[in-house]
Amino acid sequence: MAPLTNRRWVLARDVKGKTTEGDFRRADTRVDDAQLKDGEVMLKQLLISFDPAQRTWLTDSSYVTKIKVGEVMRAISLSRVVASKHPDWQAGDLVRCLGGWQDYLIISPDEVKKADAIADPKERLTRQSERLAKVVLPPGVPMELGISLFGVTGLTAYVGLVKVGRVKEGQTVLVSAAAGATGSVVGQLAKAYGAKTVVGIAGGPEKCKFLVETLGFDAAIDYKSQETKRKGLRRCIMERCPEGVDLFFDNVGGETLEAGISCLREFGTVVLCGAIGEYQKPSKEIAGIRNYFELVKKSARVEGFLVPRFASSFGEAVDELGRLSKSGQIHQAHDIQAGFESLPKTFIRLFEGRNTGKLLCKL
Amino acid sequence: MAPLTNRRWVLARDVKGKTTEGDFRRADTRVDDAQLKDGEVMLKQLLISFDPAQRTWLTDSSYVTKIKVGEVMRAISLSRVVASKHPDWQAGDLVRCLGGWQDYLIISPDEVKKADAIADPKERLTRQSERLAKVVLPPGVPMELGISLFGVTGLTAYVGLVKVGRVKEGQTVLVSAAAGATGSVVGQLAKAYGAKTVVGIAGGPEKCKFLVETLGFDAAIDYKSQETKRKGLRRCIMERCPEGVDLFFDNVGGETLEAGISCLREFGTVVLCGAIGEYQKPSKEIAGIRNYFELVKKSARVEGFLVPRFASSFGEAVDELGRLSKSGQIHQAHDIQAGFESLPKTFIRLFEGRNTGKLLCKL
Repeated sequence: MAPLTNRRWVLARDVKGKTTEGDFRRADTRVDDAQLKDGEVMLKQLLISFDPAQRTWLTDSSYVTKIKVGEVMRAISLSRVVASKHPDWQAGDLVRCLGGWQDYLIISPDEVKKADAIADPKERLTRQSERLAKVVLPPGVPMELGISLFGVTGLTAYVGLVKVGRVKEGQTVLVSAAAGATGSVVGQLAKAYGAKTVVGIAGGPEKCKFLVETLGFDAAIDYKSQETKRKGLRRCIMERCPEGVDLFFDNVGGETLEAGISCLREFGTVVLCGAIGEYQKPSKEIAGIRNYFELVKKSARVEGFLVPRFASSFGEAVDELGRLSKSGQIHQAHDIQAGFESLPKTFIRLFEGRNTGKLLCKL
Repeated sequence: MAPLTNRRWVLARDVKGKTTEGDFRRADTRVDDAQLKDGEVMLKQLLISFDPAQRTWLTDSSYVTKIKVGEVMRAISLSRVVASKHPDWQAGDLVRCLGGWQDYLIISPDEVKKADAIADPKERLTRQSERLAKVVLPPGVPMELGISLFGVTGLTAYVGLVKVGRVKEGQTVLVSAAAGATGSVVGQLAKAYGAKTVVGIAGGPEKCKFLVETLGFDAAIDYKSQETKRKGLRRCIMERCPEGVDLFFDNVGGETLEAGISCLREFGTVVLCGAIGEYQKPSKEIAGIRNYFELVKKSARVEGFLVPRFASSFGEAVDELGRLSKSGQIHQAHDIQAGFESLPKTFIRLFEGRNTGKLLCKL
């Protein structure tokens, strides 16, 4: 292979508040498989994943090391091994990794394995996330499912709903950001596991229609609607869940979280997955959760989770997601943008809530 | 028995903010055991319990029905049956009930049993709490333990720490309002169950000394001290729990809760028992919990509880509390005020944090 251009988007400046395209700049380099040392593999990136948590990676307060100015924007990706000097990896292998916004990368799988020994917990988790995972999809399954339903998205939905939330038959389940990658799987999983009522919160009539008509949610709440503005989110939830909510899977935080807490039943649960509504706010604008005493009154819990900490459940999760996908009980929607140039724009698209299903960019 | 004066303190007005003596007024009546109907018992009150939750009972936002102006101030009490027309209750029996701030009361145990059928959940819980419970103490055990360690206080500590918190050997346990009735038992229970480090938060050097020297806490934090003001509560906790907190039993809420959340370890737990620091604040002054996203980063949970919902564990709790009390591993401190006139003053004493251990008033 001749030396190739490696297009890269790096962080141009520290990001405050809403992300803009100007927060990133191009810093292309060249890459050559002749550079490959023993133990290394070279990957060509195929699909880049967009995840709300990436916004926290741009801050000091994340669970991983902050992305520094000048570094390639970090992102989960689906890649193909194009050259390998490591016995466990062959050219042609499909892999999931933390490849970032670039065309190619060269990594040493054995070096990454040493991440477990890193003392600093943020840095350890960051480096552990760089591990390559071989993606083997059954025949006929489109490649993008390797980075959505069978990737972090599906694992997050499964671990959150089943392991953290301990969903039970007959429950009333509420999901926020329900038309998003994770939320849409959570709602369908809840139905598959026998939830009596599954209600999704999403922005706009199209998303709400999609939840009910395509994904089989029992009801949807359009948080941008006049109805919600007039009645308030709490009342909209209670009208659709008159006996209250057993399990609230929250991806939004802030006022949505407060409304969900206020609708909990006795011994109810909030699974705290993310807070996409809050990530772009300056910290002084972040309103606290004032009604936490409801948790005492309801003997209820709020439990957060980071999916990498539940690796021991991944095998079970993939088996279950595979079974339910095959039987048609779970459908993963995708919003696939195209082109390397679109990466910053697509990132902004995520926080504007314009995607339905898993947001990806095909390089 | 001749007709007797029944001294009573009733609610004089709706209480906003801090409770004052003027919020209560005397409204004595007369009581006569000749009035007793079949199925009724007459109780003479001996000890009145003061519990932070009572402040919430004066509001609409409690888990029980609000105490109305003109009604006897509701309170848990230890009483003696002085006359009975019910076959299950004999004169001389010691009982625990929701007797309120009065000398005598006449109740019908069978009527109270019907409370389970009440539809409104607040009213149901209120009426269920009026049930009589026979108190049988081993010889030599002082009567007040029937309303402290072997009453709601001890049950709350046990259920919260063991059933909700699932305390484990080797853990680092943090307790707020640690010199109070419940907190002081929680810390000792945690030590008895093998916690590596137990740290209490309390107000003033005497309470802190009491925690460490009398109750065997490993360390104490005086939240009123100059050190805490200078360093902030979070840093004071981290200095005493350098590896972070596994289990935080919180009785205070607000900033104390926030500080505790920020010190949690991975998979840490906050047991939310009460929020004594917040009960007297007007709702617009209640600051929310802003750092709830820590729960995601730490895969941690906040779980609230109301002890009446855990009645199935009371037998086990009383057995364990009895065993540990007998072996000297748990010591319940009391602050016993005296005299019917002192009831409102004693209530205020609780919210000023002037008691160490269980606050009672002997009539």
